[in-house]
Amino acid sequence: METTLKVEGMTCGHCKSAVEGALKEVDGVNAVDVDLETGDVKVSHSETANKVEMREAVEEQGYDVV
Amino acid sequence: METTLKVEGMTCGHCKSAVEGALKEVDGVNAVDVDLETGDVKVSHSETANKVEMREAVEEQGYDVV
Repeated sequence: METTLKVEGMTCGHCKSAVEGALKEVDGVNAVDVDLETGDVKVSHSETANKVEMREAVEEQGYDVV
Repeated sequence: METTLKVEGMTCGHCKSAVEGALKEVDGVNAVDVDLETGDVKVSHSETANKVEMREAVEEQGYDVV
């Protein structure tokens, strides 16, 4: 399954790495692809992955999910 | 002694931390203060600290010293 999160506030490669790293720690997440320009974060995950956990993982890094 | 480097390309707190951390690794550097808005990086250092090493430390993190 794939979910696209819209994330605000990412400005650089460090931000991209922070968001990718945090999402990959969420249970059931297999892959993450961040587009810095658009803020689109594509998350490939199993059926059991929890989208609230995904959102929280991003927010804990200091970014807004809109 | 204090040297102010003008650094381009820092956009966020991660960038600030990367530049501060790299400069603190330079021999003779005692303290670093980054102003993200202006790009001014104030480096407090001993007389023996090498300014070329400071510049290189910043550049290795992917930022330009102008």
